[in-house]
Amino acid sequence: MESKSNYNGGFEGVETEARVANKRGAGTCESLLRILALALALSAAVLLGVDKQNKIVPLRIVDTLPPISVPASAKWHYLSAFMYFVVAHAIACSYAAISLILSIGNRGGKSSGLSLFVVIADLVMAGLLFSSNGAAVAIGLMGYQGNSHVRWKKVCDVFGRFCDQAAAAFVVSLLSAIAFLLLVAIAVRRLHKK
Amino acid sequence: MESKSNYNGGFEGVETEARVANKRGAGTCESLLRILALALALSAAVLLGVDKQNKIVPLRIVDTLPPISVPASAKWHYLSAFMYFVVAHAIACSYAAISLILSIGNRGGKSSGLSLFVVIADLVMAGLLFSSNGAAVAIGLMGYQGNSHVRWKKVCDVFGRFCDQAAAAFVVSLLSAIAFLLLVAIAVRRLHKK
Repeated sequence: MESKSNYNGGFEGVETEARVANKRGAGTCESLLRILALALALSAAVLLGVDKQNKIVPLRIVDTLPPISVPASAKWHYLSAFMYFVVAHAIACSYAAISLILSIGNRGGKSSGLSLFVVIADLVMAGLLFSSNGAAVAIGLMGYQGNSHVRWKKVCDVFGRFCDQAAAAFVVSLLSAIAFLLLVAIAVRRLHKK
Repeated sequence: MESKSNYNGGFEGVETEARVANKRGAGTCESLLRILALALALSAAVLLGVDKQNKIVPLRIVDTLPPISVPASAKWHYLSAFMYFVVAHAIACSYAAISLILSIGNRGGKSSGLSLFVVIADLVMAGLLFSSNGAAVAIGLMGYQGNSHVRWKKVCDVFGRFCDQAAAAFVVSLLSAIAFLLLVAIAVRRLHKK
């Protein structure tokens, strides 16, 4: 009887150790994904935030006269959707840095309330990033294609380099939003397994 | 000893009943929120999907001649962001209907895998709705304000009724996206309490 009890105790010990190792592994994976989300959100904000292009554009004021050359520039803060994009990604980036510290401090789920707060905040950040990504892509696509119905001409034929860098920012931003979504999905799976 | 055991059994019975009642209450609350999310997504899609306005617009072809009147119309499918909005909300609406049936069938969490699938799918739908809402609002705001830097003129001064209905669709859509976010948050909290 005693030996059985000892055996059980040993087995439980191995099981607990395996559980702790699993938790640590999951925690490391989550931290790495959080660092990736942070890096992607930061890259997206910087890519669009430093995006700028100056050009000399021919402008026809009177139809009967030849066009005159005027300097024109494309900057991210000329469009409110791009401003929303940069601000939203800066917020997500700052939050990712804070939550990374909180998650490392709360390794092993010491504070249950804090873990719940981080998952809900990750969820809100994912919503914010998807919203700002949608807004910026919609305006970027309009600049790339134009629209004859509302008579909005495309601008990417003039500011090609600006548009290419903006497109790169949108792709990185989408990856960042997906990383936040994955963080929530992993947390849901972890809680579900409990 | 026997009486103590009986007492414990009775207490456990009460506790189990309370837990079942709590689960049922939470399930009903979740179903109601899902119905609300469905109704909001459907309303947003219909509001923008049936939005249409015809107008006679003065158009100046030659500067020296008076403007001529031409018929113009505003329809949701003229803008790709609005198409994305309607399609995304139709998908979310269909998913909400299917997930409502699945959730009712899986009341009490009989199938653990199905519960997990529904939470992850809710998460994806929230992302899709936030993205499409951001895209449509960005284009709607551009139509409302215009932008001098890219020379895109506002169109809402001509198609006022169309813009008002679109704005209503955007508000309803935002509420729908928040409802999906809340569904995930509630599921996370429920799993966290386990």
